[in-house]
Amino acid sequence: MKPVKIGVIGLGNVGTGTLTILTENARNLAEKLGFPLEVAAICSPRVHTRELPALPGVLKTTEWREVVNHPDVEVVAELVGGTGTAREIVDAAIAAGKSVVTANKEMLALSGVELWQAAASAGVSLAMEASVAGGIPIHTVLRDGISGDRIDTLFGILNGTCNYILTEIEQKGAAFGDVLAEAQRLGYAEADPTADVDGFDARSKLAILAGLAFGQRVLPAQIFTEGIRRVTPLDFAYAHTLKHTIRLICAARRTPTGLLLSVRPSLIPQSTIMAGVTGAYNAVWVKGHYGQDTFYYGRGAGAQPTGVAVVSDLVRVARELRYGHPGRLSPFAHGTLTGAEPLPIEQLKSSYYLRFRVKDAPGIIAKLAGILAGKGISIDAVLQLPNEPKDDLPFVITVEPAEEGAIRAAVAEMAALDFVIEPPLALPMEKGL
Amino acid sequence: MKPVKIGVIGLGNVGTGTLTILTENARNLAEKLGFPLEVAAICSPRVHTRELPALPGVLKTTEWREVVNHPDVEVVAELVGGTGTAREIVDAAIAAGKSVVTANKEMLALSGVELWQAAASAGVSLAMEASVAGGIPIHTVLRDGISGDRIDTLFGILNGTCNYILTEIEQKGAAFGDVLAEAQRLGYAEADPTADVDGFDARSKLAILAGLAFGQRVLPAQIFTEGIRRVTPLDFAYAHTLKHTIRLICAARRTPTGLLLSVRPSLIPQSTIMAGVTGAYNAVWVKGHYGQDTFYYGRGAGAQPTGVAVVSDLVRVARELRYGHPGRLSPFAHGTLTGAEPLPIEQLKSSYYLRFRVKDAPGIIAKLAGILAGKGISIDAVLQLPNEPKDDLPFVITVEPAEEGAIRAAVAEMAALDFVIEPPLALPMEKGL
Repeated sequence: MKPVKIGVIGLGNVGTGTLTILTENARNLAEKLGFPLEVAAICSPRVHTRELPALPGVLKTTEWREVVNHPDVEVVAELVGGTGTAREIVDAAIAAGKSVVTANKEMLALSGVELWQAAASAGVSLAMEASVAGGIPIHTVLRDGISGDRIDTLFGILNGTCNYILTEIEQKGAAFGDVLAEAQRLGYAEADPTADVDGFDARSKLAILAGLAFGQRVLPAQIFTEGIRRVTPLDFAYAHTLKHTIRLICAARRTPTGLLLSVRPSLIPQSTIMAGVTGAYNAVWVKGHYGQDTFYYGRGAGAQPTGVAVVSDLVRVARELRYGHPGRLSPFAHGTLTGAEPLPIEQLKSSYYLRFRVKDAPGIIAKLAGILAGKGISIDAVLQLPNEPKDDLPFVITVEPAEEGAIRAAVAEMAALDFVIEPPLALPMEKGL
Repeated sequence: MKPVKIGVIGLGNVGTGTLTILTENARNLAEKLGFPLEVAAICSPRVHTRELPALPGVLKTTEWREVVNHPDVEVVAELVGGTGTAREIVDAAIAAGKSVVTANKEMLALSGVELWQAAASAGVSLAMEASVAGGIPIHTVLRDGISGDRIDTLFGILNGTCNYILTEIEQKGAAFGDVLAEAQRLGYAEADPTADVDGFDARSKLAILAGLAFGQRVLPAQIFTEGIRRVTPLDFAYAHTLKHTIRLICAARRTPTGLLLSVRPSLIPQSTIMAGVTGAYNAVWVKGHYGQDTFYYGRGAGAQPTGVAVVSDLVRVARELRYGHPGRLSPFAHGTLTGAEPLPIEQLKSSYYLRFRVKDAPGIIAKLAGILAGKGISIDAVLQLPNEPKDDLPFVITVEPAEEGAIRAAVAEMAALDFVIEPPLALPMEKGL
């Protein structure tokens, strides 16, 4: 099947991440689609001075119209941002009969409804997963995954900079100004931090998500917005006393008469999974009338997480272009991928927890340690809780990463010892989570 | 646009939830689609004795072939389960040129690849969101949301019964057998609990998800599986000493030579968000090479959460049937929904945290309490951390749910008091999370 060719406009953070994934992950993507996704043209003011992946035959230009009008380009990825040139690019692409993938939250928050109307009239696709919460596929979830539900409430942590600053205030007891300065030094906050710390970035994102969740147009100006400048370490001390923490919460709540929308620092219970969202992560909590609570968590920004959102949109749009009914392309094995055959579990390398029940006797640890050493397994810790009976004594040995095969051989040998009451219980310790 | 008519086969838990949502949420669904989703036929052995929603004109039969062959039915929802009759139903529906939505994990784990091939040959859609993790739209996420990524690892808590039992052992220190008996009494575990507690249910689900995540066929028999029968309260005591907890973890890990797959009780760090998954909830943690960590959480079972998955699939399939390029239907406002207009935030009803900075003086609390009482606001608690300076004394009042408008009026009045150093900081307390 013929490749789908893409024009990428904008080579900032997201554009660079998108190009990296399209090039490095090309084989995997072609496998999924049954045809390649190829970059045909790139536009950026810095396109001739930037270091780019080797892209033979790709048009590199500083003039976006050359990308939009490139005869091979079927899909335009608008990764410029803002509401000026970006809007011109999207309008021109739709007018030229090309599908559009965009990461542009400001433009969609203000004009999403009109852009969709224009795209529908022109018979092209518009995709926008990357516009909210970077690596979290919340658009897909609301559009498809839980579309059968009637959503009652949506809560989001949608600005990574604010969440990073609040977490630092919470964990280090530092003042807002000091944390902001440090975040700026580390590149987590912009030189002009207003859009982030005063809540305007989060507000655009909430406008988009509320539109999707409730089927109702929501404009940013309709959302009550308050930033995080006034939150102090003392507020966290009080919040903790109340068994709460503080996050910049974007909220959209359905009431019998309409929607209540806000972006503001809020106290949330420490016991909720939302309180575990720290640092630059984002999260969305959706309460459906039928499906009840679902929760989505991931990186809110970053070249590659946001790039995944752009490329996933490109995959979907390309599938629509070539297959018409994209749901009909099997998401299961396509048969030719190698390197993903199931392996015997004996090859798993992990830390393990070994729990024993033994009759107390001299030299037990020495004997068990000897068996482990014989298999090349290193002990990490030996633990025994107090006050256990001598004739059925439990204790635990944890071991450093070893192969399951070696662990099993050791466990089998240990199970045969006369002081061992039942075969040791071996559980992996999943450090990778 | 012409309605899409559905045949529902099977009226167990999921079938009942699906019917409820299709009837109660019909207007919302029609709004999203631009045409109605209508039930045309229902089949169940108990269809004539069950209490069902009023469904005038709907064929009610005990013979599934009458549903599959019903001339109006375009989509068949197979909600029977198992690999016997269910497979006959799906084969017959595909052969009759009808799209299929199924919640059947056993059938998909064993024969998903063949069913997709048959559906593709027949030019019909096959949808299966409800087959894994009930209310969590993990199929949609893997198929569309993060399809651009290359997945390295997938961890899941995919059996709610096991997670409920493990959480009970952890929290109450009760033995496995006692907790199982109680879970059976409460209806959280089946009379024959083997499929759940020995890991076979979770194994089918992992086989499906690994197939989607890695584009590789994975059969249940290829997955190392160990149930939770041997996990004791003592193991939780040791795990806690190690700052871990224990969950039945489904894992699929890409290695340079293939996939390592397991379903087994595992120690996971208490600090990870996965450790917060308690009770009958499910969760999936995906690590992508580009997008890094994303996490999905929700109800793993239940009539309505699983019904949402079925109905969301029906929405998508119906959209494909009527629009061809389903991505082109705007997910934004469709214009005619009422009752979701943005409201002024003053109407928000919430508990609030009010933080004050005052110059110490007699009667401060009395004065502030008087203002609150004047607005009809009830105080919940007054908090003061020790050792603060008298000339800039911070303290906090939390109030019971009140309207934001009243809170704002009170705050404005308080800000004008001479002992108040800066306007009180009012933050909502989001109890609803």
